[in-house]
Amino acid sequence: MKILGLDTSGLVAGVAVVENDTLVGEFTTDYKKTHSQTLLPMLDWLRDMIELDLDTLDAVAVASGPGSFTGLRIGSATAKGLGLALRKPLVEVPTLEGLAWNLWGTGHVVCPLMDARRNQVYTAAYAFHPSDEGMELETLLPGQPMDVALLCGRLSKMGRSVIFLGDGVPVYHEVLKARMQTPFLVAPAGCNRQRAANIAALGAVYYARGRGMDAALHQPEYFRKSQAEQNAESL
Amino acid sequence: MKILGLDTSGLVAGVAVVENDTLVGEFTTDYKKTHSQTLLPMLDWLRDMIELDLDTLDAVAVASGPGSFTGLRIGSATAKGLGLALRKPLVEVPTLEGLAWNLWGTGHVVCPLMDARRNQVYTAAYAFHPSDEGMELETLLPGQPMDVALLCGRLSKMGRSVIFLGDGVPVYHEVLKARMQTPFLVAPAGCNRQRAANIAALGAVYYARGRGMDAALHQPEYFRKSQAEQNAESL
Repeated sequence: MKILGLDTSGLVAGVAVVENDTLVGEFTTDYKKTHSQTLLPMLDWLRDMIELDLDTLDAVAVASGPGSFTGLRIGSATAKGLGLALRKPLVEVPTLEGLAWNLWGTGHVVCPLMDARRNQVYTAAYAFHPSDEGMELETLLPGQPMDVALLCGRLSKMGRSVIFLGDGVPVYHEVLKARMQTPFLVAPAGCNRQRAANIAALGAVYYARGRGMDAALHQPEYFRKSQAEQNAESL
Repeated sequence: MKILGLDTSGLVAGVAVVENDTLVGEFTTDYKKTHSQTLLPMLDWLRDMIELDLDTLDAVAVASGPGSFTGLRIGSATAKGLGLALRKPLVEVPTLEGLAWNLWGTGHVVCPLMDARRNQVYTAAYAFHPSDEGMELETLLPGQPMDVALLCGRLSKMGRSVIFLGDGVPVYHEVLKARMQTPFLVAPAGCNRQRAANIAALGAVYYARGRGMDAALHQPEYFRKSQAEQNAESL
Protein backbone atom coordinates (compact mmCIF):
# COMPACT_ATOMS: atom_id res chain seq x y z
CA MET A 1 0.00 0.00 0.00
CA LYS A 2 1.37 3.40 -0.99
CA ILE A 3 0.11 6.57 0.70
CA LEU A 4 0.95 10.23 0.12
CA GLY A 5 0.75 12.28 3.31
CA LEU A 6 0.34 16.07 3.54
CA ASP A 7 0.46 18.26 6.63
CA THR A 8 0.11 22.03 6.52
CA SER A 9 -1.92 22.41 9.69
CA GLY A 10 0.66 24.60 11.44
CA LEU A 11 3.89 26.38 10.54
CA VAL A 12 5.29 23.08 9.26
CA ALA A 13 4.71 22.20 5.62
CA GLY A 14 5.37 18.53 4.91
CA VAL A 15 4.93 15.91 2.22
CA ALA A 16 5.79 12.23 2.59
CA VAL A 17 5.27 8.91 0.86
CA VAL A 18 4.93 5.69 2.86
CA GLU A 19 4.88 2.33 1.09
CA ASN A 20 4.05 -0.56 3.43
CA ASP A 21 6.64 -0.41 6.23
CA THR A 22 8.92 2.05 4.47
CA LEU A 23 9.07 5.83 4.48
CA VAL A 24 10.12 6.20 0.83
CA GLY A 25 10.61 9.94 1.17
CA GLU A 26 9.76 12.99 3.21
CA PHE A 27 10.34 16.70 2.71
CA THR A 28 9.43 18.98 5.57
CA THR A 29 10.08 22.62 6.41
CA ASP A 30 9.23 24.78 9.40
CA TYR A 31 9.99 28.17 8.01
CA LYS A 32 8.38 31.55 7.55
CA LYS A 33 7.36 31.00 3.91
CA THR A 34 3.66 30.40 3.33
CA HIS A 35 2.52 26.89 2.50
CA SER A 36 1.22 28.03 -0.87
CA GLN A 37 4.86 28.82 -1.77
CA THR A 38 6.33 25.60 -0.42
CA LEU A 39 3.98 22.63 -0.57
CA LEU A 40 3.79 21.97 -4.31
CA PRO A 41 7.50 22.59 -5.04
CA MET A 42 8.35 20.23 -2.19
CA LEU A 43 5.99 17.58 -3.56
CA ASP A 44 7.51 18.05 -6.99
CA TRP A 45 11.10 17.68 -5.72
CA LEU A 46 10.16 14.66 -3.65
CA ARG A 47 8.40 13.09 -6.62
CA ASP A 48 11.46 13.72 -8.77
CA MET A 49 13.85 12.24 -6.23
CA ILE A 50 11.89 9.02 -5.62
CA GLU A 51 10.62 8.78 -9.22
CA LEU A 52 7.05 8.69 -7.91
CA ASP A 53 4.26 7.94 -10.36
CA LEU A 54 1.26 9.54 -8.64
CA ASP A 55 -1.03 7.01 -10.35
CA THR A 56 0.52 4.26 -8.20
CA LEU A 57 -0.74 5.84 -4.96
CA ASP A 58 -3.52 4.04 -3.12
CA ALA A 59 -4.72 7.11 -1.27
CA VAL A 60 -3.89 10.65 -0.18
CA ALA A 61 -3.82 11.27 3.58
CA VAL A 62 -4.15 14.77 4.93
CA ALA A 63 -3.87 16.34 8.37
CA SER A 64 -7.53 17.20 8.67
CA GLY A 65 -7.43 19.61 11.58
CA PRO A 66 -7.41 21.34 13.90
CA GLY A 67 -4.84 23.92 12.85
CA SER A 68 -4.49 27.31 11.27
CA PHE A 69 -7.43 28.16 8.99
CA THR A 70 -5.25 29.10 6.04
CA GLY A 71 -2.91 26.18 6.57
CA LEU A 72 -5.69 23.62 6.73
CA ARG A 73 -7.34 25.06 3.63
CA ILE A 74 -4.13 24.81 1.61
CA GLY A 75 -3.57 21.20 2.69
CA SER A 76 -7.19 20.18 2.13
CA ALA A 77 -7.42 21.94 -1.23
CA THR A 78 -4.22 20.25 -2.39
CA ALA A 79 -5.33 16.83 -1.14
CA LYS A 80 -8.78 17.22 -2.71
CA GLY A 81 -7.27 18.38 -6.00
CA LEU A 82 -4.90 15.42 -6.10
CA GLY A 83 -7.62 12.99 -5.06
CA LEU A 84 -10.07 14.22 -7.67
CA ALA A 85 -7.52 14.46 -10.49
CA LEU A 86 -5.98 11.06 -9.76
CA ARG A 87 -9.32 9.45 -8.79
CA LYS A 88 -7.83 8.35 -5.48
CA PRO A 89 -9.55 8.20 -2.10
CA LEU A 90 -8.66 10.64 0.63
CA VAL A 91 -7.97 9.70 4.26
CA GLU A 92 -8.50 12.25 7.01
CA VAL A 93 -5.96 12.01 9.83
CA PRO A 94 -6.77 14.25 12.79
CA THR A 95 -3.80 16.57 13.33
CA LEU A 96 -3.61 15.76 17.04
CA GLU A 97 -3.47 12.00 16.39
CA GLY A 98 -0.73 12.57 13.81
CA LEU A 99 1.25 14.57 16.36
CA ALA A 100 0.79 11.87 19.00
CA TRP A 101 2.14 9.26 16.54
CA ASN A 102 5.50 11.12 16.73
CA LEU A 103 5.94 9.52 20.16
CA TRP A 104 5.00 6.02 19.05
CA GLY A 105 5.66 3.53 21.80
CA THR A 106 6.08 5.84 24.77
CA GLY A 107 4.62 4.83 28.12
CA HIS A 108 3.92 8.44 29.11
CA VAL A 109 0.65 10.23 28.40
CA VAL A 110 1.06 12.14 25.12
CA CYS A 111 -0.46 15.61 25.05
CA PRO A 112 -0.22 17.68 21.85
CA LEU A 113 -0.64 21.42 22.35
CA MET A 114 -1.46 23.54 19.31
CA ASP A 115 -1.52 27.24 20.05
CA ALA A 116 -5.06 28.51 19.42
CA ARG A 117 -4.40 32.01 20.87
CA ARG A 118 -6.53 33.62 23.61
CA ASN A 119 -4.96 31.36 26.31
CA GLN A 120 -6.37 28.31 24.55
CA VAL A 121 -4.83 25.32 22.88
CA TYR A 122 -6.22 22.68 20.58
CA THR A 123 -5.35 19.62 22.59
CA ALA A 124 -6.05 15.98 23.37
CA ALA A 125 -4.41 13.26 25.45
CA TYR A 126 -3.45 9.78 24.34
CA ALA A 127 -1.77 6.64 25.61
CA PHE A 128 -0.11 3.91 23.58
CA HIS A 129 -0.90 0.26 24.20
CA PRO A 130 0.91 -2.66 22.56
CA SER A 131 -1.47 -4.66 20.33
CA ASP A 132 -1.26 -7.39 17.71
CA GLU A 133 -0.86 -4.70 15.05
CA GLY A 134 1.91 -2.84 16.90
CA MET A 135 0.54 0.00 18.97
CA GLU A 136 -2.99 1.25 19.56
CA LEU A 137 -3.62 4.89 20.40
CA GLU A 138 -6.07 5.16 23.32
CA THR A 139 -7.85 8.51 23.58
CA LEU A 140 -7.79 9.73 27.18
CA LEU A 141 -9.09 13.19 26.31
CA PRO A 142 -10.76 13.84 22.94
CA GLY A 143 -9.47 16.65 20.71
CA GLN A 144 -10.90 20.04 21.70
CA PRO A 145 -10.04 23.69 22.29
CA MET A 146 -9.27 24.18 25.96
CA ASP A 147 -7.89 26.69 28.44
CA VAL A 148 -4.32 25.68 29.30
CA ALA A 149 -4.74 25.94 33.08
CA LEU A 150 -7.89 23.81 32.91
CA LEU A 151 -6.03 21.25 30.80
CA CYS A 152 -3.23 21.04 33.40
CA GLY A 153 -5.84 20.25 36.03
CA ARG A 154 -7.40 17.49 33.92
CA LEU A 155 -4.01 15.94 33.14
CA SER A 156 -2.77 16.16 36.73
CA LYS A 157 -5.84 14.24 37.91
CA MET A 158 -4.78 11.33 35.71
CA GLY A 159 -1.77 10.90 38.03
CA ARG A 160 0.63 9.99 35.23
CA SER A 161 3.71 11.58 33.69
CA VAL A 162 3.06 13.50 30.48
CA ILE A 163 5.04 14.38 27.35
CA PHE A 164 3.95 17.63 25.70
CA LEU A 165 4.63 18.49 22.08
CA GLY A 166 3.45 20.97 19.49
CA ASP A 167 3.74 24.69 18.81
CA GLY A 168 1.78 25.49 21.98
CA VAL A 169 4.62 24.22 24.18
CA PRO A 170 6.97 27.24 23.94
CA VAL A 171 3.97 29.58 24.26
CA TYR A 172 2.59 27.99 27.45
CA HIS A 173 5.69 26.43 29.03
CA GLU A 174 5.49 28.71 32.08
CA VAL A 175 1.83 27.80 32.63
CA LEU A 176 2.71 24.10 32.43
CA LYS A 177 5.51 24.58 35.00
CA ALA A 178 3.18 26.46 37.33
CA ARG A 179 0.10 24.26 36.98
CA MET A 180 1.14 20.66 36.33
CA GLN A 181 0.99 18.51 39.48
CA THR A 182 2.55 15.44 37.83
CA PRO A 183 5.99 15.10 36.18
CA PHE A 184 6.15 16.18 32.56
CA LEU A 185 8.64 16.35 29.70
CA VAL A 186 8.80 18.31 26.49
CA ALA A 187 9.52 16.49 23.21
CA PRO A 188 12.74 17.52 21.42
CA ALA A 189 13.40 18.76 17.87
CA GLY A 190 12.70 15.99 15.39
CA CYS A 191 9.49 14.82 17.05
CA ASN A 192 7.88 17.94 18.53
CA ARG A 193 6.01 19.23 15.45
CA GLN A 194 3.77 17.89 12.68
CA ARG A 195 5.33 15.21 10.46
CA ALA A 196 3.80 14.32 7.10
CA ALA A 197 5.50 10.91 7.48
CA ASN A 198 3.18 10.14 10.37
CA ILE A 199 0.12 11.47 8.54
CA ALA A 200 1.00 8.98 5.80
CA ALA A 201 1.80 6.14 8.24
CA LEU A 202 -1.35 6.64 10.29
CA GLY A 203 -3.29 7.26 7.07
CA ALA A 204 -2.22 3.79 5.92
CA VAL A 205 -3.56 2.26 9.15
CA TYR A 206 -6.87 4.12 8.81
CA TYR A 207 -7.16 3.36 5.10
CA ALA A 208 -6.69 -0.35 5.83
CA ARG A 209 -9.57 -0.02 8.31
CA GLY A 210 -11.87 1.31 5.59
CA ARG A 211 -11.63 5.01 6.34
CA GLY A 212 -10.88 6.06 2.75
CA MET A 213 -13.44 8.56 1.44
CA ASP A 214 -14.40 10.38 -1.74
CA ALA A 215 -12.11 13.40 -1.97
CA ALA A 216 -15.08 15.63 -2.78
CA LEU A 217 -16.60 14.91 0.65
CA HIS A 218 -13.60 15.98 2.71
CA GLN A 219 -13.74 19.11 4.84
CA PRO A 220 -11.15 20.21 7.38
CA GLU A 221 -12.11 20.19 11.08
CA TYR A 222 -11.44 23.69 12.40
CA PHE A 223 -12.66 23.12 16.00
CA ARG A 224 -14.01 26.65 16.17
CA LYS A 225 -15.27 29.38 13.89
CA SER A 226 -12.86 31.87 12.36
CA GLN A 227 -12.64 35.35 13.86
CA ALA A 228 -14.32 36.73 10.72
CA GLU A 229 -17.28 34.35 11.14
CA GLN A 230 -17.57 35.22 14.84
CA ASN A 231 -17.49 38.93 14.01
CA ALA A 232 -20.20 38.45 11.37
CA GLU A 233 -22.46 36.61 13.84
CA SER A 234 -22.10 39.30 16.49
CA LEU A 235 -23.28 42.04 14.14
CA MET B 1 22.47 26.62 18.00
CA LYS B 2 22.07 25.51 14.39
CA ILE B 3 23.20 22.05 13.27
CA LEU B 4 23.18 20.40 9.85
CA GLY B 5 22.67 16.62 10.07
CA LEU B 6 23.60 14.07 7.41
CA ASP B 7 22.84 10.35 7.35
CA THR B 8 23.82 8.07 4.49
CA SER B 9 24.74 5.05 6.58
CA GLY B 10 22.12 2.77 5.01
CA LEU B 11 19.69 2.91 2.12
CA VAL B 12 18.27 6.15 3.51
CA ALA B 13 19.84 9.41 2.40
CA GLY B 14 18.85 12.30 4.62
CA VAL B 15 19.71 15.93 5.32
CA ALA B 16 18.21 18.04 8.09
CA VAL B 17 18.71 21.32 9.87
CA VAL B 18 17.87 21.71 13.56
CA GLU B 19 17.93 25.12 15.20
CA ASN B 20 17.49 24.96 18.99
CA ASP B 21 14.19 23.13 19.57
CA THR B 22 13.03 23.35 15.96
CA LEU B 23 13.51 21.03 13.01
CA VAL B 24 13.76 23.79 10.39
CA GLY B 25 13.80 21.32 7.53
CA GLU B 26 14.42 17.72 6.56
CA PHE B 27 14.65 15.95 3.22
CA THR B 28 14.94 12.18 3.32
CA THR B 29 14.65 9.40 0.76
CA ASP B 30 14.83 5.62 1.00
CA TYR B 31 15.12 4.73 -2.63
CA LYS B 32 17.33 2.76 -4.97
CA LYS B 33 19.35 5.75 -6.22
CA THR B 34 22.91 5.95 -4.86
CA HIS B 35 23.67 8.56 -2.24
CA SER B 36 26.16 10.27 -4.54
CA GLN B 37 23.19 11.07 -6.80
CA THR B 38 20.85 12.23 -4.06
CA LEU B 39 22.61 13.80 -1.09
CA LEU B 40 23.88 17.06 -2.56
CA PRO B 41 20.76 17.85 -4.64
CA MET B 42 18.66 17.22 -1.52
CA LEU B 43 20.87 19.52 0.53
CA ASP B 44 20.64 22.12 -2.20
CA TRP B 45 16.82 21.96 -2.38
CA LEU B 46 16.53 22.05 1.40
CA ARG B 47 18.90 25.02 1.56
CA ASP B 48 16.85 26.78 -1.09
CA MET B 49 13.55 26.11 0.68
CA ILE B 50 14.66 27.31 4.12
CA GLU B 51 16.97 30.03 2.75
CA LEU B 52 19.85 28.52 4.70
CA ASP B 53 23.12 30.42 4.83
CA LEU B 54 25.62 27.62 5.51
CA ASP B 55 27.90 30.13 7.26
CA THR B 56 25.33 30.42 10.05
CA LEU B 57 25.71 26.74 11.01
CA ASP B 58 27.42 25.97 14.32
CA ALA B 59 28.44 22.46 13.33
CA VAL B 60 27.88 19.59 10.92
CA ALA B 61 26.68 16.32 12.48
CA VAL B 62 27.12 13.06 10.61
CA ALA B 63 26.00 9.49 11.20
CA SER B 64 29.47 8.13 11.87
CA GLY B 65 28.82 4.41 11.57
CA PRO B 66 28.33 1.58 11.49
CA GLY B 67 26.69 1.23 8.10
CA SER B 68 27.43 0.42 4.50
CA PHE B 69 31.04 1.18 3.56
CA THR B 70 30.12 3.23 0.51
CA GLY B 71 27.27 5.00 2.29
CA LEU B 72 29.41 6.01 5.26
CA ARG B 73 32.19 7.24 2.98
CA ILE B 74 29.80 9.48 1.05
CA GLY B 75 28.34 10.93 4.25
CA SER B 76 31.74 11.41 5.89
CA ALA B 77 33.33 12.89 2.78
CA THR B 78 30.44 15.33 2.41
CA ALA B 79 30.53 16.29 6.10
CA LYS B 80 34.32 16.72 6.05
CA GLY B 81 34.15 18.78 2.87
CA LEU B 82 31.49 21.05 4.33
CA GLY B 83 33.31 21.30 7.66
CA LEU B 84 36.65 22.18 6.07
CA ALA B 85 35.21 24.61 3.51
CA LEU B 86 32.99 26.39 6.03
CA ARG B 87 35.52 26.10 8.91
CA LYS B 88 32.89 24.46 11.08
CA PRO B 89 33.40 21.66 13.60
CA LEU B 90 32.06 18.19 12.91
CA VAL B 91 30.09 16.09 15.40
CA GLU B 92 30.10 12.30 15.10
CA VAL B 93 26.78 10.69 16.01
CA PRO B 94 26.94 6.89 16.15
CA THR B 95 24.37 5.53 13.69
CA LEU B 96 22.86 3.19 16.28
CA GLU B 97 22.32 6.03 18.78
CA GLY B 98 20.70 8.12 16.05
CA LEU B 99 18.34 5.23 15.25
CA ALA B 100 17.48 4.78 18.93
CA TRP B 101 16.61 8.49 19.17
CA ASN B 102 13.70 7.75 16.75
CA LEU B 103 11.92 6.16 19.71
CA TRP B 104 12.61 9.01 22.13
CA GLY B 105 10.70 8.51 25.35
CA THR B 106 9.72 4.87 25.05
CA GLY B 107 9.84 2.66 28.13
CA HIS B 108 10.76 -0.43 26.11
CA VAL B 109 14.33 -1.49 25.40
CA VAL B 110 15.29 -0.07 21.99
CA CYS B 111 17.30 -2.39 19.76
CA PRO B 112 18.45 -1.14 16.34
CA LEU B 113 19.28 -3.91 13.86
CA MET B 114 21.36 -2.98 10.83
CA ASP B 115 21.79 -5.83 8.39
CA ALA B 116 25.51 -6.70 8.19
CA ARG B 117 25.02 -9.86 6.06
CA ARG B 118 26.38 -13.32 7.02
CA ASN B 119 23.66 -13.76 9.73
CA GLN B 120 25.03 -10.75 11.57
CA VAL B 121 23.66 -7.38 12.50
CA TYR B 122 25.27 -4.20 13.72
CA THR B 123 23.31 -3.74 16.90
CA ALA B 124 23.11 -2.21 20.36
CA ALA B 125 20.48 -1.90 23.08
CA TYR B 126 19.38 1.25 24.84
CA ALA B 127 16.90 2.46 27.43
CA PHE B 128 15.56 5.98 27.88
CA HIS B 129 15.52 7.63 31.31
CA PRO B 130 13.89 10.97 32.08
CA SER B 131 16.49 13.53 33.17
CA ASP B 132 16.71 17.26 33.80
CA GLU B 133 17.62 17.75 30.13
CA GLY B 134 14.76 15.60 28.80
CA MET B 135 15.80 12.03 28.19
CA GLU B 136 19.12 10.25 28.67
CA LEU B 137 20.01 7.26 26.53
CA GLU B 138 21.41 4.46 28.69
CA THR B 139 23.54 1.91 26.82
CA LEU B 140 22.51 -1.60 27.84
CA LEU B 141 24.57 -3.28 25.12
CA PRO B 142 27.32 -1.32 23.31
CA GLY B 143 27.28 -1.14 19.52
CA GLN B 144 28.85 -4.20 17.89
CA PRO B 145 28.46 -6.75 15.11
CA MET B 146 26.61 -9.79 16.49
CA ASP B 147 24.94 -13.01 15.45
CA VAL B 148 21.16 -12.47 15.56
CA ALA B 149 20.39 -15.63 17.55
CA LEU B 150 23.03 -14.69 20.12
CA LEU B 151 21.55 -11.19 20.35
CA CYS B 152 18.07 -12.63 21.02
CA GLY B 153 19.54 -14.60 23.92
CA ARG B 154 21.22 -11.52 25.39
CA LEU B 155 18.04 -9.42 25.06
CA SER B 156 15.78 -12.13 26.45
CA LYS B 157 17.95 -12.36 29.58
CA MET B 158 17.19 -8.68 30.26
CA GLY B 159 13.59 -9.75 30.90
CA ARG B 160 12.10 -6.62 29.32
CA SER B 161 9.99 -5.93 26.24
CA VAL B 162 11.94 -4.71 23.22
CA ILE B 163 11.24 -2.52 20.19
CA PHE B 164 13.32 -3.42 17.14
CA LEU B 165 13.99 -1.05 14.27
CA GLY B 166 16.32 -0.75 11.31
CA ASP B 167 16.86 -2.47 7.97
CA GLY B 168 17.80 -5.74 9.72
CA VAL B 169 14.23 -6.19 10.99
CA PRO B 170 12.62 -7.47 7.76
CA VAL B 171 15.69 -9.65 7.11
CA TYR B 172 15.69 -11.36 10.52
CA HIS B 173 12.04 -11.11 11.59
CA GLU B 174 11.60 -14.91 11.56
CA VAL B 175 14.69 -15.36 13.75
CA LEU B 176 13.32 -12.80 16.21
CA LYS B 177 9.98 -14.62 16.33
CA ALA B 178 11.71 -17.95 16.92
CA ARG B 179 14.34 -16.83 19.43
CA MET B 180 12.98 -13.94 21.50
CA GLN B 181 11.75 -15.08 24.92
CA THR B 182 10.36 -11.67 25.90
CA PRO B 183 7.62 -9.64 24.15
CA PHE B 184 8.81 -7.48 21.28
CA LEU B 185 7.44 -4.97 18.80
CA VAL B 186 8.64 -3.68 15.47
CA ALA B 187 8.74 0.09 14.84
CA PRO B 188 6.48 1.36 12.02
CA ALA B 189 7.21 3.44 8.93
CA GLY B 190 8.23 6.95 9.94
CA CYS B 191 10.50 5.87 12.79
CA ASN B 192 12.03 2.55 11.70
CA ARG B 193 14.97 3.84 9.63
CA GLN B 194 17.73 6.44 9.87
CA ARG B 195 16.58 10.06 10.23
CA ALA B 196 18.95 12.95 9.58
CA ALA B 197 16.69 15.02 11.87
CA ASN B 198 17.79 12.90 14.80
CA ILE B 199 21.45 13.00 13.77
CA ALA B 200 21.10 16.78 13.90
CA ALA B 201 19.11 16.76 17.16
CA LEU B 202 21.46 14.36 18.93
CA GLY B 203 24.41 16.16 17.31
CA ALA B 204 23.24 19.35 19.01
CA VAL B 205 23.19 17.57 22.39
CA TYR B 206 26.68 16.17 21.85
CA TYR B 207 28.05 19.45 20.50
CA ALA B 208 26.77 21.24 23.61
CA ARG B 209 28.70 18.65 25.65
CA GLY B 210 31.94 19.58 23.89
CA ARG B 211 32.08 16.76 21.36
CA GLY B 212 32.71 19.00 18.32
CA MET B 213 35.94 18.08 16.51
CA ASP B 214 38.15 19.26 13.68
CA ALA B 215 36.56 17.95 10.47
CA ALA B 216 39.97 16.73 9.28
CA LEU B 217 40.16 14.27 12.20
CA HIS B 218 36.85 12.51 11.52
CA GLN B 219 36.81 8.92 10.31
CA PRO B 220 33.74 6.71 10.02
CA GLU B 221 33.45 3.71 12.36
CA TYR B 222 32.94 0.65 10.16
CA PHE B 223 32.83 -1.98 12.96
CA ARG B 224 34.62 -4.50 10.76
CA LYS B 225 36.98 -4.58 7.82
CA SER B 226 35.63 -4.50 4.30
CA GLN B 227 35.49 -7.74 2.33
CA ALA B 228 38.33 -6.42 0.13
CA GLU B 229 40.55 -5.79 3.15
CA GLN B 230 39.75 -9.23 4.58
CA ASN B 231 40.58 -10.81 1.22
CA ALA B 232 43.88 -8.94 1.05
CA GLU B 233 44.86 -10.10 4.55
CA SER B 234 44.12 -13.73 3.77
CA LEU B 235 46.46 -13.75 0.75
